[in-house]
Parts: sequence; C-alpha cells; structure tokens
Amino acid sequence: MEFVTGVKEKEAMELPEVIIQEEGTEVIVEGAIHSIRNMGEIAFVILRKRDGLIQTVWEENKTNLDISELKEAACVSVKGVVKDEERAPHGKEVRLEQITILSQPTAPLPLAIDKWKLNTSLETKLDMRSVSLRNLKERARFKIQEAICRGFREYLYAQGFTEIHTPKIGAKGAEGGSNMFKLSYFHTPAVLAQSPQFYKQMMVGVFDRVFETGPVFRAEKHNTRRHLNEYTSLDFEMGYIDSFLDICEMETGFLQYTIELLKKDYAKELKMLGITLPNVEKIPYVRFDEAKRLVSEKYNRKIRNPFDLEPEEEELIGKYFKEEYDADFVFVTHYPSKKRPMYAMDDPADDRYTLSFDLLFKGLEITTGGQRIHDYNMLVEKIEKRGMSQEGMEQYLDTFKYGMPPHGGLGIGLERLTMQLLGEDNVREACLFPRDMKRLEP
Amino acid sequence: MEFVTGVKEKEAMELPEVIIQEEGTEVIVEGAIHSIRNMGEIAFVILRKRDGLIQTVWEENKTNLDISELKEAACVSVKGVVKDEERAPHGKEVRLEQITILSQPTAPLPLAIDKWKLNTSLETKLDMRSVSLRNLKERARFKIQEAICRGFREYLYAQGFTEIHTPKIGAKGAEGGSNMFKLSYFHTPAVLAQSPQFYKQMMVGVFDRVFETGPVFRAEKHNTRRHLNEYTSLDFEMGYIDSFLDICEMETGFLQYTIELLKKDYAKELKMLGITLPNVEKIPYVRFDEAKRLVSEKYNRKIRNPFDLEPEEEELIGKYFKEEYDADFVFVTHYPSKKRPMYAMDDPADDRYTLSFDLLFKGLEITTGGQRIHDYNMLVEKIEKRGMSQEGMEQYLDTFKYGMPPHGGLGIGLERLTMQLLGEDNVREACLFPRDMKRLEP
Repeated sequence: MEFVTGVKEKEAMELPEVIIQEEGTEVIVEGAIHSIRNMGEIAFVILRKRDGLIQTVWEENKTNLDISELKEAACVSVKGVVKDEERAPHGKEVRLEQITILSQPTAPLPLAIDKWKLNTSLETKLDMRSVSLRNLKERARFKIQEAICRGFREYLYAQGFTEIHTPKIGAKGAEGGSNMFKLSYFHTPAVLAQSPQFYKQMMVGVFDRVFETGPVFRAEKHNTRRHLNEYTSLDFEMGYIDSFLDICEMETGFLQYTIELLKKDYAKELKMLGITLPNVEKIPYVRFDEAKRLVSEKYNRKIRNPFDLEPEEEELIGKYFKEEYDADFVFVTHYPSKKRPMYAMDDPADDRYTLSFDLLFKGLEITTGGQRIHDYNMLVEKIEKRGMSQEGMEQYLDTFKYGMPPHGGLGIGLERLTMQLLGEDNVREACLFPRDMKRLEP
Repeated sequence: MEFVTGVKEKEAMELPEVIIQEEGTEVIVEGAIHSIRNMGEIAFVILRKRDGLIQTVWEENKTNLDISELKEAACVSVKGVVKDEERAPHGKEVRLEQITILSQPTAPLPLAIDKWKLNTSLETKLDMRSVSLRNLKERARFKIQEAICRGFREYLYAQGFTEIHTPKIGAKGAEGGSNMFKLSYFHTPAVLAQSPQFYKQMMVGVFDRVFETGPVFRAEKHNTRRHLNEYTSLDFEMGYIDSFLDICEMETGFLQYTIELLKKDYAKELKMLGITLPNVEKIPYVRFDEAKRLVSEKYNRKIRNPFDLEPEEEELIGKYFKEEYDADFVFVTHYPSKKRPMYAMDDPADDRYTLSFDLLFKGLEITTGGQRIHDYNMLVEKIEKRGMSQEGMEQYLDTFKYGMPPHGGLGIGLERLTMQLLGEDNVREACLFPRDMKRLEP
C-alpha cells in the first residue's frame, strides 16, 4: 500500500528562495511568462510568481528552445544559473539553460498586464477579471484585503471570540425589510440573509463573544460607487458590555492589530500601491447631532434633515475630523432611533436616539454597530410600538425569554474598508467579482 | 473631543484568570446562572462563562440578595472572595458578597442544559438552538469546528495561499446541473453557487494558490443523515502541481497541522467530548477500482456498478483500511470520468478514469478533489464531447486561452469533517443552524 505523508519539498524554488541564492547556483523556477523583451541574441523573459517577478535571461544557443517558441502568458518551468544583476528586480536574474513549457496560451493577451499601471476602464477590468488581476498592482489590492480579513479573525480569536457559520438562506420575513433577495426553497418562500444579525445575537447567549466573516446580500436598488448587492461582512457580537463604547474599543483594537499586521507581512504590497497607513492610535467619537452641527457651522451648510446623514454630510464629517484632529476615522454615535432597526438599544437618557454608532473612514461609512436590546419585554414592546409582526422571529425572540447578557456588536463592509485603505474611488475596485444591479458575471 | 484608544482591561475576570487567584483574593465575575443547588442556608450558584463553569457560593445574610431572587438563566455580575475547594470545578470557588443582576429571564428554561448530556431529540435541539447550545458538550462541538476552519486557513496562509471571496449569486447555467437554487436577480435569472470551482480556478492564474471558506448551496433532494442543502466548504486550488498527489499531500499537511492545533488550543473540548484524534501521519491511497475489488473480496460483496461507489461501499472501504492499516482516512483515487465534472483531468493512461480523488474519513466522503484540465483546447473538446453548451462559461473558458498552469484543488465539507471527528451520526449535530429539505428555521 502507498501512503501520502504530507507536503514534500519541491525542487522548484519560490521567489524568496531564489533571490537569496549566491551567484552561480543552479535553480529551477516555475512561473507564467509576464513579459518578453527580445533584443535579438539575448531576451529578458520575466516570470510572474505569487511573490513577484523574476528576471530570466535567454541567450542564443544556450537553451533547448528558440525565443520564438516562448510566448507571453505561457507557463514554464526553467532551469538556470543565478547571477547578480542590480538592474533586475531583487538584484538577481536567472541565466536560462533549460526551458520546459507547461502550458501554452491559445490567444494573445487582451490587456497589457505587464504595464505598471493597467490603463483600462473599470468595466473592462471587471469583464476580464482573470486576466486584469494578473497585473501586479491590481493583484496586490487583494493581498491588502486578505490582511484585513485575517487581522479581524486573528485579533478576535485572541480576544476570546468564537467563529460561527450561520445560514445564508432563511425563512421569509425573519428580519423584515424589502431589501432581500427572494427564492423558492423546496417550494417554501425563502430569502437570502442581509446580515447574520439575529444568529449572532442568539449565539452570544452561548459563546459570549462570536464573529463571522461571510457574504451578505442586499437587494438594494442603488447603483453608486459605494454599493454592492453582495459583499463580505465582518461581523462580531459580544456579551457583558458596560457600554456601546466597548464595541468601539474592540473595533479600534482590531484596526490597530491589522495595521501592524499589514506593516509586518504586507510591506511589499503597501509599497507597491503607495499606501500611507492611517493613524488608529486613537479615534475620536462624536454624537450624531453634534457632528451635524459642527459640519453645518464650519462649512456653512444648512441641516436639512436632523434625523439622517446624507453621503455629502458624511464626507464633510470626515473632512472636519481630518482638519481638526488629523483623524482618518471617526465614530459617529447616538443615531436617531427611527433610523435604526428595532433591536437597537435606545438611549435611556433620550429615547429619540440609540446607543449605536457608525464608523466613518475618510468620510465613508464602513461600519454600523451598537448596543442591542437584551430584555425580552423591552424588545417585544418596541416591536409592537413599531407596528411590526413577530412572525418569523419566534426563535430569535425566544432566546431573550431565557436570559441574555447586555450585548452589542457591529458589521464591517470588507470591500469598503479595503477601498478606503487603498484610496480607491469605487468599491468595485476592492471586490474580486462584484455584483451590482447590472453585473452578474463573471 | 473624546477618543477611543483600544480595548481597556475589564474589572471583571475571565475564568482562566479567576482560577489562578490565591485564596482570599476579591474578584468580580460576570456570567449566566447555569444552575442553582439550594441547600437552605447555603446555595451553589454555578456561572457559565465562555471558558467553562465557575462555582460561586451564596450564604444566608452574606450578600445583598436573597437566594429566591436568583434564577437560572439570569445574567449576573458578582463580587466575592476566592476559596480553594477541591470539589469545585478547577478547584476554586467564589464566596459571594455582592450580586448585581444584569438581566432576568422571563420564562423557565425549556431544556435541562445543566445536565452533562443533554437528553433531548435532535429535532428539539435544533428547534431551540439558542438554548440547547448552552449545554457545555453541545457547545464544545463548535469549538472543534472552529479549530478545523482555523487550522485550514492558518496552514494554507503558511503555504503561500491567498484567501479569496467569490460571489454566491451567479448567472444561470455557469456550472450546469439541476442541483442549484434559482432566484431572480433584478429580473435576471440567477443561481446560488454550488461551489466556488470556476472562480478559484480563474484565480490560480493570478495568485498561484488560493483558498476560500464559505457557504455553498445544493438543491439536492436528499434527506439523509449526511446531507445538508447549505454547508460550509473549505476550498483550495493550487497551480504548478506535478501530480494530483500534490493536492492529497497538501490536504494531509492541513490535517496534520489541525490535529496539532486541536491538541494545543482545544484540549479542554477534546477531553469534554471524549475525542480520540485520528492518526494522520500517513494516509493510504488506493485506486477506485482497486478499492472496490478489495472490499468485494474481503467482505464477499458483489460489485453491482463498476463506475460508482455506493455509501455502503464507502463504509466498507473505511472498514477495510481501518482493519488492514489502522487508517481512519483513505484517499480513493482515479474516479471514473463519467462520474466527474467536465473540468476533471482524465488519466492519460486510461481516459475512462480521472486524476481525481475523494478522501474518506471513517467511511464517509469528506473531500472531493483532483487535477483539472488546464489546456484550453482540451477543455473545449471535453465540453463538446459531453454535448454541453459553453453558455454562461465564457469568462471561465477565456481564462484558459490566456495560459494556465497545471493545477488542481479540492473542497472539504466542514460539517462532515467535524461530524466524523466528533464521532456523531448525523451531520446536523455539526451545524449550528442546519438547512435541509424540511428545515429553514431557526
């Protein structure tokens, strides 16, 4: 009988290994041909690997293949000798001796992915996602996104949170709202979850602290630069809080951890994308009504609706706190009760407002969170006061009959946070395969 | 202006902190009242915290509250003095001085969650999920599940994989098959993804190695102990493989890593659940046809269908390898081509079979994987030979025109792997909120 015993070391080297080899060492490298610069008797064949580019050098009559047999986008395995070459990326190149073609493309590349900046419209980039992302800068964005998601989990594990997986298909009506995609589930009406809200609250009574990183679905008829109809939500919910500020503190801790993680493990991508990391040592917080007043005064802008923040107002709040406190982030707290869901805890000092918050990053909302109602009677009363039905919420509500600690939580839009960190103007730039009102493919 | 600066230390202690305090130390502890044993002048009030139970002791006239004011399932914050008590969990108890009730239940608990084993039917447990999981053993299962998911990610990050997030709503017909849930996406027909297969392959050309942990949806009309209609899939895909065995090796590496992670960080739960960890030092692999023959001979069972494995046959293969090699896992390789999707790489030595595999764990399939076709022409030819249409696959297929390395990958059913590790008989025991043909709530 034959056995598998785990990962065996490969003969072929990855980039970090190649570039520490001494001159004269023979190496085997695999990669995709990113570009070819043919000078006649010599050609620079740049290979793309997951960690970056490596320059290989083809010389006439030195290898088994003619340069005409090499095409951009082919995948190859090459053998050669390492040479120091200060003009090459990482200061090393590989003089080719043997080339094996692993696969050939059947068409020329439709985009100049080897250019430093991919000069193509967003639409084209999205239409040809599997090609456009081969550009190094395009690709690097999603390493930054990885760091955020990874930072979120690592930080919360360390803070005693349990990871949960909650269903995305649910019974109709669970959380109400018209913004849900509907489907038929074995002939029963069902909806796609617009957030794991009810489930994560239910699990606070079990694990005290829970988080989930997963897709959420919003059938909102928005077609803006900051909306997606499917996105990745970073959610957590925690029990035994003293105040909603405990949640803001946890989010601040996550941001601090993630910034350090980015510096440590993603320095290459930060540099490539020219990202200046925001300061998250301290994040100001300000009441919703106070924020409106400050912005109205400083920028001489009339308050049209005292119970809502317009996107332009959010931008101005971002501007205000940048100018006054050099802050990229600001927690806006105490949102009006009528603008928050029924499970939001009203402020006992003034029940027109809630113990909730949004986190703005450079003037864009990236998080909504707050303290939730944990008392069964208070929750039922609020549902009745709003004229809502309990239908579809039975098991959620039952949870509160059997005792729940004071708790709260939040949801972070992964793509929005990525977009703002990248300094991009459109959230689609921070999503591998965006879904919007007009885009369902690829 | 006020600022949030990160997580502040709480006055209340978590369990690991309490149990290392010296006798006489005053502590504050928060938790849910798990059970009350009232002996008259003294009562044992057991608090449930995320890390386990802590015994607190109420004595007449020693605290601000009468024992009658304390109810099971209430959430409390207590102040008291640590005493050594060998009969208490962790050898410590807290003599109560001050009790603050944070929240009161409004109904008695419907399940005896404080019993060591929750003696309730699976249906009832699932109907009352937010209560039944407060039982310590029920809860512990999902810490084991957490470890698997965490192990998967941590191991793959270290192996140079990039985490991706792919859409769950897709254009109709992308991967074909009748097992997809359909929905209307802004008046366009759409489906829920039954796997991230196409997307992860498309991303191999970008990142070389990718993984995703997310929900998948199968509208299969199965109602068995091992099927769910929505489950969490642990997927990876990797380029530049020499053989499909590279994928088996990566999976073996993940299992080895996760077993060590369980021993290190989840010892408490392993002990509580009485789990004996499987040996994953080496995992046998055997051809599909050979496995059928071995089982047929040893257990005197006729081969009815040479091209398919019946569930009973999978169980017997598990039994065979346990008996012959003391192996809990076995890779069954070279599945028949007609039973695998069109993207599976056929065996060049015999194209009735594929370079693919399933991993069986105690006789249950927990993984399907294999090498994929990377050559555009070969892929198109196979699609044509099967009489399939390219409709809805255009962007997937285009990827191969522009070069793709030899690659392969797999998908692991998180709930199935958890179930087998727990030694449970029904996959629903390993899912927080299962979705099956009859269950859409909670």
